[in-house]
Amino acid sequence: MKERVYNFSPGPAVLPVPVLETVRDNLLNYQESGLGIMEMSHRGKLFEDILATADSNLRELLGISADYDILWTTGGATMQFSMVPMNLLTKGKTADYIITGEWASKAQAEAKKFGETHVAASTEDRKFSYIPSEFSFLEDPAYVHFTSNNTIHGTQFASEPAVGKRELVCDASSDFLHKQVNVEKYGLIYAGAQKNAGPAGITIVVIRKDLLQRSPQGLPILLDYNTYAKNSSLYNTIPSFNVYVVGEVFKWIKREGGLAEMERRNKEKAGLLYSALDASQFYRPNIEKNSRSLMNVTFRLPSEELEGKFVKEAESAGLNGLKGHRVAGGIRASIYNAFPKAGVEALVAFMKDFESKNG
Amino acid sequence: MKERVYNFSPGPAVLPVPVLETVRDNLLNYQESGLGIMEMSHRGKLFEDILATADSNLRELLGISADYDILWTTGGATMQFSMVPMNLLTKGKTADYIITGEWASKAQAEAKKFGETHVAASTEDRKFSYIPSEFSFLEDPAYVHFTSNNTIHGTQFASEPAVGKRELVCDASSDFLHKQVNVEKYGLIYAGAQKNAGPAGITIVVIRKDLLQRSPQGLPILLDYNTYAKNSSLYNTIPSFNVYVVGEVFKWIKREGGLAEMERRNKEKAGLLYSALDASQFYRPNIEKNSRSLMNVTFRLPSEELEGKFVKEAESAGLNGLKGHRVAGGIRASIYNAFPKAGVEALVAFMKDFESKNG
Repeated sequence: MKERVYNFSPGPAVLPVPVLETVRDNLLNYQESGLGIMEMSHRGKLFEDILATADSNLRELLGISADYDILWTTGGATMQFSMVPMNLLTKGKTADYIITGEWASKAQAEAKKFGETHVAASTEDRKFSYIPSEFSFLEDPAYVHFTSNNTIHGTQFASEPAVGKRELVCDASSDFLHKQVNVEKYGLIYAGAQKNAGPAGITIVVIRKDLLQRSPQGLPILLDYNTYAKNSSLYNTIPSFNVYVVGEVFKWIKREGGLAEMERRNKEKAGLLYSALDASQFYRPNIEKNSRSLMNVTFRLPSEELEGKFVKEAESAGLNGLKGHRVAGGIRASIYNAFPKAGVEALVAFMKDFESKNG
Repeated sequence: MKERVYNFSPGPAVLPVPVLETVRDNLLNYQESGLGIMEMSHRGKLFEDILATADSNLRELLGISADYDILWTTGGATMQFSMVPMNLLTKGKTADYIITGEWASKAQAEAKKFGETHVAASTEDRKFSYIPSEFSFLEDPAYVHFTSNNTIHGTQFASEPAVGKRELVCDASSDFLHKQVNVEKYGLIYAGAQKNAGPAGITIVVIRKDLLQRSPQGLPILLDYNTYAKNSSLYNTIPSFNVYVVGEVFKWIKREGGLAEMERRNKEKAGLLYSALDASQFYRPNIEKNSRSLMNVTFRLPSEELEGKFVKEAESAGLNGLKGHRVAGGIRASIYNAFPKAGVEALVAFMKDFESKNG
């Protein structure tokens, strides 16, 4: 059988092999219960334990206090683009959006359906190639929304924008759990699972409890955060398998040394790649140095023709999924938590070889 | 290792063993691609094929014409309780609801948030123990909504209510694909996957294309059916693993002989159980004979104490998940497509033994 390749997919992304092995081994018979993990009631004791353990491990990993609820929802970040304003954009208020790329723009466009928005910063002037350092926040916005990592362009906030007493809402879909953050700085953090946390199909929302009071009456039942908060995310059937896998990823992160260790690895991996890019005249990283993403490393080659050749030959060499997003073009190496250092080293070696043959 | 038990879970429910084995064997390396099935881009060739194959197999199984779209959504039937009226309950119109239990009531309650509803029939008078045969439909409702199988009470429509030229909308979550239906009779059919079709986390909507024109502007992007129809359900990241498993279930149904064979098996399995119930003075099936569900067989014992004992001893005997829903009480044997006849025979044998000891 062909070996697993180095999988640079931007998402759904590579998962830790020990997690996959555990899932595989429990697929027909979960912990000798006689039931497969996809086949058990979401209201039974077995799944109750899976969900409670996932909740408590996430609290431990991120240091989430009792002031916050963890909600398990569906529809990915895109559903949150709607849910955030539907729940938090109180009538008469305006929400600040920081526009650092496609996803931030989509979040704002969706919010406009439900209320007023204001752009506190935009990096569209230089094709989203940097993270803004100056913001024109409203005095008293409903909240400030930002995208912590921009998968398409390969930029990332090194730290949260300083918003003072304003409520910070973060789309952390593509860098959730890549390092420790101070949750207390946020009113709400949301993340689709399919980058660092698990398979597509489950979305985690961490929300400070007092914000739940903002939701107006009459929302579609599953678009009201209170439905999840009041029912421990079990108002209706939860995607139980997806939650299980995410829970196993949480356990893996703990075993590996927690978020501090994830950050160390991510900096090391991205460092290897950016060093190689900076040392080359052939490869052009487009992102300003202090705005570079640890998750998605993007760069260009001298021509689109060479980029096509690069992607094709890389794939033949067992380096899969390096084609950049159609919006940005070029090459993108997505190297989330579970992506191994050896894969980055293999890419760097391939890049040197490719440059020597084509440079 | 303990063997798999007979799993009577009402959902997430038992899946076919060959499907589980295929999933297991492809979990770390899908078809020798080097990528696990949870870890591949939803926009890549591999997943594109998975989705296209699932679509075409579903079309073939159910006989879905080109007049209909197949949409892959999230949030289960509960999200459809919102999406149906938000998209189809045109301003100034009223929607007919047939109330045959908890889920139908919840669907109507949700529709009331978005427009006017009318009860065309209700079986609450006799505790939802039957399927109505008489209806007071509006002359020209936006649509008629019904729940084809009522998981909690154990009732099922033997055939669709005759609605004439009115648009029929069906929550088929708990009996989807259990037999052949004539899709042309429906405007829209929706089903959460977690009974007959796969794991929780994916919801299938079959909609006649002209109905897509009813959706008003300004809906939350993922609550607009057009978002799915226009983007082949790939506007955002689809729960790709869940789709994959459902696709494997479709293949399994085809291999086993299609929906005609599913119906034969389901009638045979339910027949064994209902015959045993009818032959006994000890067990009391509560549902009127012509309203009985082929999917969820419900019955009572002489006392709640005996019911508790029954559930406990059955579990020890490898018959899992027989406790009735808290709303209905008693015993519920959920015997979806993938539930084996041998499991029903084991239950019937256990029932006889239990009656002889406790009757």
